[in-house]
Amino acid sequence: MTTFKEFQAHWTPTINQYLEEKLSQEVEDETFRQIMLYSVVAGGKRLRPLLFLATASVAGMEIGENELKIACGIELIHTYSLIHDDLPAMDNDDYRRGRLTSHKKWGEAEAILAGDALLPLGIQWIAQGSQDWRLVEIITKAVGPNGMVGGQYLDIDSTNNDAVAQNEALIDKMEWLKTGCLIEASVKMATVHANMSQESSEKLVDFARAFGRAFQIYDDLIDIIESSQEAGKATHKDQEVGKNNTLTVLGIDKSRQELQGLIDKAKADLAAVNGEVLLGILDLYKKVL
Amino acid sequence: MTTFKEFQAHWTPTINQYLEEKLSQEVEDETFRQIMLYSVVAGGKRLRPLLFLATASVAGMEIGENELKIACGIELIHTYSLIHDDLPAMDNDDYRRGRLTSHKKWGEAEAILAGDALLPLGIQWIAQGSQDWRLVEIITKAVGPNGMVGGQYLDIDSTNNDAVAQNEALIDKMEWLKTGCLIEASVKMATVHANMSQESSEKLVDFARAFGRAFQIYDDLIDIIESSQEAGKATHKDQEVGKNNTLTVLGIDKSRQELQGLIDKAKADLAAVNGEVLLGILDLYKKVL
Repeated sequence: MTTFKEFQAHWTPTINQYLEEKLSQEVEDETFRQIMLYSVVAGGKRLRPLLFLATASVAGMEIGENELKIACGIELIHTYSLIHDDLPAMDNDDYRRGRLTSHKKWGEAEAILAGDALLPLGIQWIAQGSQDWRLVEIITKAVGPNGMVGGQYLDIDSTNNDAVAQNEALIDKMEWLKTGCLIEASVKMATVHANMSQESSEKLVDFARAFGRAFQIYDDLIDIIESSQEAGKATHKDQEVGKNNTLTVLGIDKSRQELQGLIDKAKADLAAVNGEVLLGILDLYKKVL
Repeated sequence: MTTFKEFQAHWTPTINQYLEEKLSQEVEDETFRQIMLYSVVAGGKRLRPLLFLATASVAGMEIGENELKIACGIELIHTYSLIHDDLPAMDNDDYRRGRLTSHKKWGEAEAILAGDALLPLGIQWIAQGSQDWRLVEIITKAVGPNGMVGGQYLDIDSTNNDAVAQNEALIDKMEWLKTGCLIEASVKMATVHANMSQESSEKLVDFARAFGRAFQIYDDLIDIIESSQEAGKATHKDQEVGKNNTLTVLGIDKSRQELQGLIDKAKADLAAVNGEVLLGILDLYKKVL
């Protein structure tokens, strides 16, 4: 039995290499390529591509070039979302993963365009790797107006808005859309691509929902628990800029309880589908518990 | 035989209605829906959806709900590109189609996000209308780093750059990517969707290339020939802000000659495929000849 740690140790370098090589090959303009690469190869845990690949492997699929292409397409889309979230008009962040954000390094127009290019390129890789329009439907729904971008809209709309500060349902929704949707889509695409039975698919998508919700709580906790140096970006920032999140509603202790509950739920889902390889991905959250 | 004028008169209201109704149904958040609708229903000639539908009809297809969905998906993507092009960090335009641009009306973050939502939603409609990943490949290539967004990057990179001002090849490339790629893709998707023979497809894609190249020259000529009121946006602006385009290289007379040559080429391509319905789309250019 492979653990997630082993799976991750095996596939992370392959994902990183594929991203760098393929992006270098595919973007014709030299400077624009550099700008896109700057954000894509900036590190990061590659969680979403690993989730896609691990789910495909739970479904018994061999991982080949096509699966890698889909997985890395998801990472391009995730990177686009980070670049745009950091923009002056959005969160106005100067650092990300320990380096200057794209707009600080290259300029604002360049950062907007790098994001605008990574999104369709990521969808293209998913379409080419799967040759299946259903995966395109899943990913575009997940990042569209009722998904990730809709969550970001709720976020800017609700920041510094006291009426929202205590509206737990709205905050739950916003956090789910911003982060959970893309995580869920990564797992859902794998179940469709692998032709899994409906029953197993449902369990895995349930796992993805719990994992995704947990991820946002983790991200909020990191913001106040870690120092800026450890996190590689500005921390303690949400409170300063009046951001509302689960943490500002529940406080630290209750957030940790909710996180633990979600982890237990996720474990139960995995047990039902022999998803052992995915279990270890939940260890990520130990840092804040 | 239907003329393009008749085709346009029949389908433009249907396209407009579909865009408004479908977008209203599909975007859950009320304010975000308004922001997206504001730019989508702002008018415009609906050239790209009409091109898609007219090409499908040249191929003998009945136009139904699926074809409308693909056509309108293209228009959503076109609208996203206009919203982002107008942003302060890009062309910094205050007016578009006679009304305030999205960021002037709603704010910069809102405009970025409206664009970020229209792009994947447009791709989603194309995927759902066609149920064919090959159309997704065509559209994502056309709007990605080696397509439309790449052209926009070359544009910001070359503005006020004297080394570029007389580099006709670079300017040709930039204009092709910015405008031509999406026009070509609209026709190419129709030929694939309609399962046209390779020979007819090639002629129609050749027509699209000539039409697309002509469109950019037309757009540059409009900028200096029409008054701001007629055009519904700021004109005489390219020269003021140091933009380089075919016009700044060739001058008005030679630009008109090149435009006429492209129209003749486009007509010859259409004659070879009984593409009479598309002929009239070239009348658009009479205004500047």
